Amino acid sequence: MKTRFVLIHTSHAGNVGATARAMKTMGFDDLVLVAPRWANVLNREETIQRASGALDVLKNARIVPTLDEALDGMTHLCATAMTPRDFGPPTRAPRDHFAQLLSAPEGPDAAARPESVAFLFGSERFGMQNDDVYRCHVALSIPTDPCFGSLNLAAAVQLIAYDWRQALGGFAVQSATSPPAQADAAAVAAMLRHWEEALVAVDFLDPAAPKKLMPRLNQLFNRASLSPEEIHILRGVAKAMLQKAAVAEPPKA
Amino acid sequence: MKTRFVLIHTSHAGNVGATARAMKTMGFDDLVLVAPRWANVLNREETIQRASGALDVLKNARIVPTLDEALDGMTHLCATAMTPRDFGPPTRAPRDHFAQLLSAPEGPDAAARPESVAFLFGSERFGMQNDDVYRCHVALSIPTDPCFGSLNLAAAVQLIAYDWRQALGGFAVQSATSPPAQADAAAVAAMLRHWEEALVAVDFLDPAAPKKLMPRLNQLFNRASLSPEEIHILRGVAKAMLQKAAVAEPPKA
Repeated sequence: MKTRFVLIHTSHAGNVGATARAMKTMGFDDLVLVAPRWANVLNREETIQRASGALDVLKNARIVPTLDEALDGMTHLCATAMTPRDFGPPTRAPRDHFAQLLSAPEGPDAAARPESVAFLFGSERFGMQNDDVYRCHVALSIPTDPCFGSLNLAAAVQLIAYDWRQALGGFAVQSATSPPAQADAAAVAAMLRHWEEALVAVDFLDPAAPKKLMPRLNQLFNRASLSPEEIHILRGVAKAMLQKAAVAEPPKA
Repeated sequence: MKTRFVLIHTSHAGNVGATARAMKTMGFDDLVLVAPRWANVLNREETIQRASGALDVLKNARIVPTLDEALDGMTHLCATAMTPRDFGPPTRAPRDHFAQLLSAPEGPDAAARPESVAFLFGSERFGMQNDDVYRCHVALSIPTDPCFGSLNLAAAVQLIAYDWRQALGGFAVQSATSPPAQADAAAVAAMLRHWEEALVAVDFLDPAAPKKLMPRLNQLFNRASLSPEEIHILRGVAKAMLQKAAVAEPPKA
């Protein structure tokens, strides 16, 4: 879905750079700045530094004088702000709102899923103006500790971009290792018999009074969901114990 | 649940401050730094500035020389890193892992829900060392765009803190306005009759050829889920139209 991030009256160049980086990590690239404090903010050193490689987002970003110009073509507007005290759009948590938005059927009618979504962020110091909130369909409120709701601007962008990307289906998590196969119960039992023999040989287990040692080890290894490779390692340990025991005390002929 | 954030070999003071702020917005306050680049990082100007009021988190933070000392008393260790290529803990998305972790039953046995959780973050430039990842129970991977996975350190802390807080039950979203009551169907119908009369009076609606104007307006207002106050406003508009029409063209006596 077409997605735009709109920063209104942003003061700190670092936040513009960090916003570009946050957007790009979540696969978004449409950034519009409304009347930022610095006209050259897209080229400032701090911006570039905090963007940390998300330079294409900065390069494609637009600077416009009014919010109207930032919203061309966008259908669903999300404020990120407190709802004004008098009236205003409903306040919702991002995750709940996104689930609801995307559960609407696709189609041309007005109750359908929107065709595009814009996220609006106010200035670091003053947040969004009420007049800007009034025109939005929802006021997204990131659930923070009631005693400390002071989210950094770029951190708020990061959280909204993450939740929105997740709602849209998300990116896959890639593992560098393939998940190990699981050893079957017979292999575990054989390994335990090998260990039992070895533990007797090193005088740790007394066959006359075994207590619950082997069942305990069995439970431990069950919880660990051993792989065939780990069975191999554990049998190697048992073998080494047996060999050392044989050297220390050769079996009586 | 007892929760600790551990930053290992952090280079940038700004990230330490932003981490404290990110933690505090999500209601966490236990921060430990393992061998940061700056020994005085907790008191540096950039740290204080980026912490933006989360000074209690900085004040309570500990600096220790080794990871071992940072992990005292913690039971479940979450790396935030790629899984090493050779072997290592399973890689999971934070949201999935947290749901699984908290679905385990409470209790003293080893398969139960952990009593405490530590999140480990490596250095900005090199991430976590393999040896540190190996000792963890899971490698959390925040799902980012495969083409640009470069999350800022404090942004990663913010996302993990948010997902963990949400998994723990979250904070409530507070609305400044109480949700408006919904007008009942009779009130909507009466308002529409008032409007119909007014639209005829201002010569917008031709009673001889009404087309589908009133049903269309009915659908529009249904979608809008009108409140009693809005019914009042709309009836006021109808009344004003009727009054203006009466002045413009007094009814024939």
